[in-house]
Amino acid sequence: MRVELITIGDELLLGFTIDTNSAFLGRELAGLGIEIHRRTTVGDDRAAIAQAVREALDRADGVITTGGLGPTSDDVTMEAVAAALGVELERNEAIVARLEEIWRSRGRSEKLPPANLSQAMLPRGAIILPNNHGTAPGAFVERADKRWVAVLPGVPREMREMFNGSVRDVLAARAPGGTVVRSLAVRTTGIPESRLPALLAELADGVDGMSLAYLPSVEGVDLRLTARGSRPAAADERLRAAARKLSARLEPYAYAEGTTDLAEVVLEACRRAGRRLAVAESCTGGMLGQRLTAIAGSSEVFAGGVIAYDNEVKIELLGVDREQLERHGAVSEEVVTAMATGAKRRFGVDVGVAVTGIAGPGGGSADKPVGTVWIAVATADEIVARQLRLFGDRDEVRRRAAQAALDLVRRSSAGNLGT
Amino acid sequence: MRVELITIGDELLLGFTIDTNSAFLGRELAGLGIEIHRRTTVGDDRAAIAQAVREALDRADGVITTGGLGPTSDDVTMEAVAAALGVELERNEAIVARLEEIWRSRGRSEKLPPANLSQAMLPRGAIILPNNHGTAPGAFVERADKRWVAVLPGVPREMREMFNGSVRDVLAARAPGGTVVRSLAVRTTGIPESRLPALLAELADGVDGMSLAYLPSVEGVDLRLTARGSRPAAADERLRAAARKLSARLEPYAYAEGTTDLAEVVLEACRRAGRRLAVAESCTGGMLGQRLTAIAGSSEVFAGGVIAYDNEVKIELLGVDREQLERHGAVSEEVVTAMATGAKRRFGVDVGVAVTGIAGPGGGSADKPVGTVWIAVATADEIVARQLRLFGDRDEVRRRAAQAALDLVRRSSAGNLGT
Repeated sequence: MRVELITIGDELLLGFTIDTNSAFLGRELAGLGIEIHRRTTVGDDRAAIAQAVREALDRADGVITTGGLGPTSDDVTMEAVAAALGVELERNEAIVARLEEIWRSRGRSEKLPPANLSQAMLPRGAIILPNNHGTAPGAFVERADKRWVAVLPGVPREMREMFNGSVRDVLAARAPGGTVVRSLAVRTTGIPESRLPALLAELADGVDGMSLAYLPSVEGVDLRLTARGSRPAAADERLRAAARKLSARLEPYAYAEGTTDLAEVVLEACRRAGRRLAVAESCTGGMLGQRLTAIAGSSEVFAGGVIAYDNEVKIELLGVDREQLERHGAVSEEVVTAMATGAKRRFGVDVGVAVTGIAGPGGGSADKPVGTVWIAVATADEIVARQLRLFGDRDEVRRRAAQAALDLVRRSSAGNLGT
Repeated sequence: MRVELITIGDELLLGFTIDTNSAFLGRELAGLGIEIHRRTTVGDDRAAIAQAVREALDRADGVITTGGLGPTSDDVTMEAVAAALGVELERNEAIVARLEEIWRSRGRSEKLPPANLSQAMLPRGAIILPNNHGTAPGAFVERADKRWVAVLPGVPREMREMFNGSVRDVLAARAPGGTVVRSLAVRTTGIPESRLPALLAELADGVDGMSLAYLPSVEGVDLRLTARGSRPAAADERLRAAARKLSARLEPYAYAEGTTDLAEVVLEACRRAGRRLAVAESCTGGMLGQRLTAIAGSSEVFAGGVIAYDNEVKIELLGVDREQLERHGAVSEEVVTAMATGAKRRFGVDVGVAVTGIAGPGGGSADKPVGTVWIAVATADEIVARQLRLFGDRDEVRRRAAQAALDLVRRSSAGNLGT
């Protein structure tokens, strides 16, 4: 089944809004075995929308539109779709009743303004797609030749709920029912993209007929496997087997499959080892704690931390030696080690993790340029410290530093004992 | 000048990648007075790309493509663009030399593989667009009828640098040179979108001929003014004047214009008042510190903080009374107040800010459901505490809580004395 997507809105063309709806729909449809062949974005212009819908219907079996369903005068998608299909707009009394009810429930005493009634006008013969998170209903219209148009709202939350609530079932019933496109990523960190092909050798271009894409980000490189041409269960099994092969080849850089965050991997390893964790953060300023506490249930492992931004805090709350700090500077092996041990002792936990560095843009020197970061992990058995030279802007340096600190826990005995 | 954009890549259609290039180009071109009239996304398919370029050239004065310039066999954009323009691909020896140099500089002893030479093939007559962050050069090709195609890479960083380095100048020279589309946002927090129109009254639909869009996010609602039809300097002046009108009407919810973060507003107010700040975070787990330290130069105002995730940490590092904590629970006015005063005292600063709450998904009760959060600000003069009932998932509750805590500083005397 060939499907095209049309996303509508001046703000998309002007770049004020990033189109996340397209990615959502692309993934969801691929999971149903439906590939989007083309995507078109047009502004809030009746003629441009109608033209795009007509062209798409000439090429495809079905067309999905998002956006342009609001109550204001620049929301013209329903009219344009009706025009493209050559049908009239009809007032739907069930929708009028619902709009009036919503209007009353918001405590408005006056009558529903006529402008809002535009949201009750649907192309003749349309099936209503309920909107449980907004006022604008969607519509599904089928032509005599079985080609169809599904009209969805542009607000991401409304669009997703409408897709999950009704559109998915409508499309699944029409999907070929055979093969799907599915993907699974192997996540790595601590190795640059350019070094991966040599490490992967014959797996570098794909595994067992599945394609392999390299997706670098600040936190590391994800290797995304994509399986086409299999039925759902077989696709998942092929992906899992291939991911295992890749992970084995990518030791010790691979830390997870799918979308699992490194913080979750670290917490789980500590939990299994019965170890608790505390952090001492200078340049990351709380980012490490935020990453760990983003995971529900982290309180079982994570006790807390000190944001030791000021040097006095490093001395007074973490017990860093003033003389050492003055002699070696805040960004040094001596200080990061003292911070990690200080956090471990101060919070009475098994593992202390510390970060101190120069995130920039200021603060660098010839000796310690911006991007110089020390990380350390302290346990009862050992203290491991590493110096990093990170590139990127302030945000990137901080994110790379937090990720490297988490990875140091994973790769040290602190994170490995439990696995 | 009518311009269309074509973004190329299977991963865009499959939804594995969110298309951020489109938004960047939309904004940049609008700033030059060039509006993108249509955007099309096609997969890595020679015929589909050539067809999309041909159709776009029929409608527009110029076409920009992104993606499909890599060295692998599915990168076919140059071939497809040449085909659409009816010209041959030619090997460019300057690019060959550069590719060989890059290859050698990466320490490869073997010769440049033939596949990589595909990146040296450009449509006849093309101007090379240099790529300083990758191997794939771009191309600018003009037809006899002056219609043109600019071919850019898909990797966002390479694309942006190429645009800024050469494409912007090429297009600016061709832009009509008259009016531009510019925008400016007034940022608000602490007020729901649905209450804004009543507050804005006659400004709710636009100001002085400029349109007004409401952009709600977890952190608040941005009100984006868009000016069309003015020359650059006049557009900026109209926007600034209108933003001032909106901000006055939106007291005390408006905190900044443009993209300024609330953390920056708070730091600046404290800096001017000569006050220093420390945080005590429970449910936000470091997010508040991370927000503040994301701003370069924050060390002048921000001393540090305690991530008091565990209740023992609240007691031992922040001096919260154990009996109070047991009687009222960690999410209570008594505890948040003690946390804020504890942070203020422990760090020897003027302002202590504290957050404690139930971010979910677990931990809620009938009395204190998920989303119950207490925030407090302590200074020498006063202690202000507020209870919030926040909605959303764990990440949303935490982000809303951090934003509300920053806003409490801004609106309390702690943040107001200096303004």
